[in-house]
Amino acid sequence: MENLHLLDAKSADLHAGLLALGARARKAARTLGLAAPEQKNRALLAAAKFLREKAPDLLAANALDMAQARSKNLGPAMLDRLSLDEKRIASMAQSLEDIAALPDPVGRVLETFLRPNGLRIERVATPLGVVGVIFESRPNVTADAGALCLKAGNAAILRAGSESFHSSRLIHACLVEGLREAGLPEDSIALIPTRDRAAVGAMLTGLGGAIDVIVPRGGKNLVARVQAEARVPVFAHLEGIVHVYVDGEADLEKAEKILLNAKLRRTGICGAAETLLVDRAGAPRLLAALVEALLAAGCEVRGDEATQKVDARVKKAVAEDWTTEYLEAIIAVKLVEGVEGAIEHVETFGSHHTDCIVTENVARAEKFLREVDSAIVIHNASTQFADGGEFGFGAEIGIATGRMHARGPVGVAQLTSFKYLVHGAGQTRP
Amino acid sequence: MENLHLLDAKSADLHAGLLALGARARKAARTLGLAAPEQKNRALLAAAKFLREKAPDLLAANALDMAQARSKNLGPAMLDRLSLDEKRIASMAQSLEDIAALPDPVGRVLETFLRPNGLRIERVATPLGVVGVIFESRPNVTADAGALCLKAGNAAILRAGSESFHSSRLIHACLVEGLREAGLPEDSIALIPTRDRAAVGAMLTGLGGAIDVIVPRGGKNLVARVQAEARVPVFAHLEGIVHVYVDGEADLEKAEKILLNAKLRRTGICGAAETLLVDRAGAPRLLAALVEALLAAGCEVRGDEATQKVDARVKKAVAEDWTTEYLEAIIAVKLVEGVEGAIEHVETFGSHHTDCIVTENVARAEKFLREVDSAIVIHNASTQFADGGEFGFGAEIGIATGRMHARGPVGVAQLTSFKYLVHGAGQTRP
Repeated sequence: MENLHLLDAKSADLHAGLLALGARARKAARTLGLAAPEQKNRALLAAAKFLREKAPDLLAANALDMAQARSKNLGPAMLDRLSLDEKRIASMAQSLEDIAALPDPVGRVLETFLRPNGLRIERVATPLGVVGVIFESRPNVTADAGALCLKAGNAAILRAGSESFHSSRLIHACLVEGLREAGLPEDSIALIPTRDRAAVGAMLTGLGGAIDVIVPRGGKNLVARVQAEARVPVFAHLEGIVHVYVDGEADLEKAEKILLNAKLRRTGICGAAETLLVDRAGAPRLLAALVEALLAAGCEVRGDEATQKVDARVKKAVAEDWTTEYLEAIIAVKLVEGVEGAIEHVETFGSHHTDCIVTENVARAEKFLREVDSAIVIHNASTQFADGGEFGFGAEIGIATGRMHARGPVGVAQLTSFKYLVHGAGQTRP
Repeated sequence: MENLHLLDAKSADLHAGLLALGARARKAARTLGLAAPEQKNRALLAAAKFLREKAPDLLAANALDMAQARSKNLGPAMLDRLSLDEKRIASMAQSLEDIAALPDPVGRVLETFLRPNGLRIERVATPLGVVGVIFESRPNVTADAGALCLKAGNAAILRAGSESFHSSRLIHACLVEGLREAGLPEDSIALIPTRDRAAVGAMLTGLGGAIDVIVPRGGKNLVARVQAEARVPVFAHLEGIVHVYVDGEADLEKAEKILLNAKLRRTGICGAAETLLVDRAGAPRLLAALVEALLAAGCEVRGDEATQKVDARVKKAVAEDWTTEYLEAIIAVKLVEGVEGAIEHVETFGSHHTDCIVTENVARAEKFLREVDSAIVIHNASTQFADGGEFGFGAEIGIATGRMHARGPVGVAQLTSFKYLVHGAGQTRP
């Protein structure tokens, strides 16, 4: 068996095996790119059915992963991300069905130009090609990422975290069963069949031209490594230093509601707020109320001088607080000089992910939306809406902060490219 | 003067100088990205005026370049590309005015989503950032590339070919005068102030994160080097192995007209046809007429066995003919097994640039358009329409065959990115 061969292989064999896997994925991508929507959906629905049927086997595989993780003394957060139960398996299967139900992104006519010479030029969506996905402990990413790539007509090369090795292999087997049932190439979704970390390095080089784009899913260390080393484009965000700016003309009640939701609804997601900026001119009316609301909700507050004066429980903010993604119930708070000061702070310390202004002043809102160079800029709503599902994309493979190709939530539409179709009637160029 | 300093500098100084230039471009990009359309257009129109005024100086600078080029025994094609005259200078200035007249690509609302919770989400165009352009002998690229980047709100870092050094410096000085007159940062359009070839290598690394994308403009050697070495995204095509497939159900008169235009209107452009594929089933009716028309028009024909039988002047095609971009009056001709065979040939030997089918059979045309994976796929029109101007983009910085971000003609719209603006009324996420 090739998998076992690879597992035992030395580095040269590993590299050759990965190149062969890449070449097979590239070939599969051509077939998949031309597959009818129904055929892709049939594969997704069959995979969901197999996932449900194989739930007992999957739980057993996951138990193996969990035992190994415990023996390595991994922390409770990691164990939670790794673990599967009946409910999580059902929700994984449901995800595949939801992705099958999305409109097909391939072949959409994105623009049409009618030229004076009678040429009709259409820009239509095509698949991107082969997507490499490198992820960590959550086994469900195997299903989600594989399905999103498939829906967009892309082959996927998945590299699961070594912790979730057994679970991911079983989930991957269900996806392959689905491809087989639909008559699609099994190489359309490949799982790197080794825990050898050298495989990640090989993927980052693009596997000899086989990988068009890499999507890392995981913590900051993984994303930083991928961004630094990848020789192919990367769709990712390193972190979400998300700001809520409460303007002097904000409605206090609205601001409080948005702020608490943005910071505390879920603290561990990339769209969670990490810094509160308050307009100095509005501070007498706003600052104490906002800080007390955060404290009352159990949030630690680290503030500048003015904020510290509000309540003895406010800790002193130091320089790194302005660039820290806490991902827990902690917030940094600072007064700024109006919307100009807020934009300046966001552009200096932010991560170009998601930022928000709360104000009733339309001109200031427009200025903030225009001048803040982030993937998502929000007026009067929670930053936790930074999510492909909430945008109506159905599902997302991640959120990107780069400016090339995809930006913001990366759903199936962002996993496509395009080409131009020119419809003529014998025209020649003068 | 910094320029002179850089010219004399050792490699470490050169690198430091380039990094500083990159950092200034990045800073300028921020200001430029927020500039009003009128301000950018004012800079373009002023630059056009300066170009016209400085025509005598520019002719003198160009004479210097030409003298050096002649002393190096550069060929007549190269000398022609390098040389400027009154007419070429006027046309360069006109180009700047045409670009000023284009609709502003920044801030366009590309999509709007209305969500059930009342959120209105807009996807709006933003600049890409900093564009690096590396080009060879044509001095007018300095003006065109700088202007297209400026129009899209991007800073540009231009690396002119060493042959056009003096001409490019003078053209660049006019662009900078235009920026100054419009109150825009002079660093918005930078010209690498040295002929040292190490500067190209430094640009390909991205100048410490200062360059977002590289556009090479020049011959195959330059593009191949950029594609192989660049650590940042590249918008380019290596070559245009452009096919015209004449189907068994083609209208012969239409086919002949399209073929002659596609091959011979201008043989040196990337959209010029290089290979003619003829449906074997239609060959008795089509092949001889098409081959004779090519020969009569002065085109050398290199054919497969069937094609050689048509006329004694047809030379024998060898393997490399199917992958050669002649860029002159030579064409390779081959019979294929219908539209399937044509697609197979194009996918095997093509360069994903531009390909064309001539047929009256709509189903076959649709199959070809769908299955040929090229940036531009044409039905019943000349391949020489592969051009941003002909697409209605106003002007292009080049044609890209990659699948990331830009594909096909790269005009000002393709030189933009986007962000999401979320308009709320106090919404929080449940």
